[in-house]
Amino acid sequence: MNTNEKALELHKEWNGKLETVSKTPVKSREDLSLAYTPGVAEPCKVIAGDKEAAYTYTIKANTIAVVSDGSAVLGLGNIGPYAAMPVMEGKAVLFKEFGGVNAVPICLDTQDTEEIIKAVTWMAPGFGGINLEDISAPRCFEIEERLKETLDIPVFHDDQHGTAIVVLAGIINALKVTGKKKEDCRVVVNGAGSAGVAITKLLLNYGFPHIIMCDKSGILSKNSSDLNWMQEKMMEVTNLEGKTGSLADAMKGADIFVGVSAPGIVSAEMVSSMNKDAILFAMANPVPEIMPDIAKAAGAKVVGTGRSDFPNQVNNVVAFPGIFKGALEGRATQITEEMKLAAALAIASLVPDEELNEDNIMPEAFNPKVAEVVAQAVKSHIAR
Amino acid sequence: MNTNEKALELHKEWNGKLETVSKTPVKSREDLSLAYTPGVAEPCKVIAGDKEAAYTYTIKANTIAVVSDGSAVLGLGNIGPYAAMPVMEGKAVLFKEFGGVNAVPICLDTQDTEEIIKAVTWMAPGFGGINLEDISAPRCFEIEERLKETLDIPVFHDDQHGTAIVVLAGIINALKVTGKKKEDCRVVVNGAGSAGVAITKLLLNYGFPHIIMCDKSGILSKNSSDLNWMQEKMMEVTNLEGKTGSLADAMKGADIFVGVSAPGIVSAEMVSSMNKDAILFAMANPVPEIMPDIAKAAGAKVVGTGRSDFPNQVNNVVAFPGIFKGALEGRATQITEEMKLAAALAIASLVPDEELNEDNIMPEAFNPKVAEVVAQAVKSHIAR
Repeated sequence: MNTNEKALELHKEWNGKLETVSKTPVKSREDLSLAYTPGVAEPCKVIAGDKEAAYTYTIKANTIAVVSDGSAVLGLGNIGPYAAMPVMEGKAVLFKEFGGVNAVPICLDTQDTEEIIKAVTWMAPGFGGINLEDISAPRCFEIEERLKETLDIPVFHDDQHGTAIVVLAGIINALKVTGKKKEDCRVVVNGAGSAGVAITKLLLNYGFPHIIMCDKSGILSKNSSDLNWMQEKMMEVTNLEGKTGSLADAMKGADIFVGVSAPGIVSAEMVSSMNKDAILFAMANPVPEIMPDIAKAAGAKVVGTGRSDFPNQVNNVVAFPGIFKGALEGRATQITEEMKLAAALAIASLVPDEELNEDNIMPEAFNPKVAEVVAQAVKSHIAR
Repeated sequence: MNTNEKALELHKEWNGKLETVSKTPVKSREDLSLAYTPGVAEPCKVIAGDKEAAYTYTIKANTIAVVSDGSAVLGLGNIGPYAAMPVMEGKAVLFKEFGGVNAVPICLDTQDTEEIIKAVTWMAPGFGGINLEDISAPRCFEIEERLKETLDIPVFHDDQHGTAIVVLAGIINALKVTGKKKEDCRVVVNGAGSAGVAITKLLLNYGFPHIIMCDKSGILSKNSSDLNWMQEKMMEVTNLEGKTGSLADAMKGADIFVGVSAPGIVSAEMVSSMNKDAILFAMANPVPEIMPDIAKAAGAKVVGTGRSDFPNQVNNVVAFPGIFKGALEGRATQITEEMKLAAALAIASLVPDEELNEDNIMPEAFNPKVAEVVAQAVKSHIAR
């Protein structure tokens, strides 16, 4: 059996990857009177008088919802809320296994922006945070922004920010390996959906001044047609020289390429046209924009992909569990840019300088320190 | 420390009574590739082609949502969604501990009927059933009815039907103890909210022809003012003689009294005015409509209450875990009247005839057979 067949078999056997488990046994009348009536009325009364007490007496302290509408699931596209469940369950499993955070998968039977916002707003009281997942762009931008404005718990679209944080962590270490300086680097981000936009924003905030975004039709500029509102907004802070042309044109003389796009669209020639010691993150899944060995033969110094069978795997799992763990422990009301930058720096720091090299820029996902280090960094950057 | 103090202390210690737990460890890259990407895409694809496969590959098979808006919580009233969480968590704990059913507490930040219906409809794909809880009347009637019409999973308002089922179970056994016949019994139900209405409906369906409903202003009749739409509807099938007057008037010559109302409102005189071998279920909590010893001294034969420190405790926990266990195992799309009646008969049957007496009409809540027997009865009455 290959991995896919085995995964299908196991999913059948599991019949759901998650269960809800009581922290306390209910084996006697006394147990019942303490966990349920009449005793349960006491914490209810305290919370009725002080909403904040929900963090002391309920699961809100350490439970998040993993919310999707099934509109942009993995590489599968718009498969809807029923088919999205295995992914959201898996995500919830990772939150618990890696970060100790309880997570409930919620797949919504609507793909309407306003309805998704309402659904999340209404279900929020019992949760300490909301992880949005696999919601297609540009709706995901508005949904997240609006929810951040109105809810008093962290809202985090992992496809955007989790990816951006891990990419930035990898780039921070790649800069060390190549000796490049962020101020001088020319960066190309290919793919202008949720991940591409978030990566670009975070790289700008970290201090990369020269970023060009591309999509299927080539370089995005103020003159591009068919930009969505978020892409329009991005054109105010990227491609300041007003370049036009193809992806190949954009890559000429670039130092860093970040692909969140499609398999095989980067050629060896395009890599050769980049600056010396080029850095590539080719994260299309499961087949990257260019295979690492080809990129390296064409002159790239550091290559990262989404795959575990090549060096430098860019895997969100080193980010999201620790980010929510830290946000919940510090009772953050938002996950701010500062917290994201702190998370990226923490992830980068997990590869000690003496172990850092072109084939080792990312921490091992199963390193048990990762979530704790990320959580502490996030927690210490919560604004008060 | 008394129970209340201890319960508050323990709730603080628990910091949430539930956790989400993975059924499978994620300790290696292989684990990750099976539970998450890339393997997870396989069950997603199967479900995308056949929605029913969600029952094979996801938690939908054995997970329900426990949904409240916090508008009618225990005896505490409208305390809102934050303060309702300890109760919903407790309910979720009981579903798992007694019935093996995974349950997720969801407290909604809206008390608008239409919005609650929308919220539940949108979140339904990941769940195999919806247990509505502590939603005030008459909104609870419309919310449940509308959701039953549109959703293809069971929707069950436990305050209504769980209570009605357990009361009917008790009455079935009380009839055996007293030798009364349902056709001849005059029944008074005091309290015309969610529980009172549901009890009345189920008793009618079981075959009690003579039922009078009362509330704070006395006997409900077609001439009563201020009836809500559900109470109006109930007047078409109850109090067919058109009686008017007080609760005391209603109880004269009655065989069965069911109270889901207020502490101490039934006097010894009112019990004495009932027929011989009267049956009383005085379920106001924590103080019943009349204390059992007073009722017995006044001539009652069988007295049940909601309390565990008196005989014949009427406790929903003997019903709801088994009902959802059976409904989920049989993949019911609704919980029908037949399934409710089957559950009541199953609960009654758990007290063997040789052990049945006026002080032993209800099965022990901690009897491990209860949920299984109820589940089997429910399952075998699913309409196809």
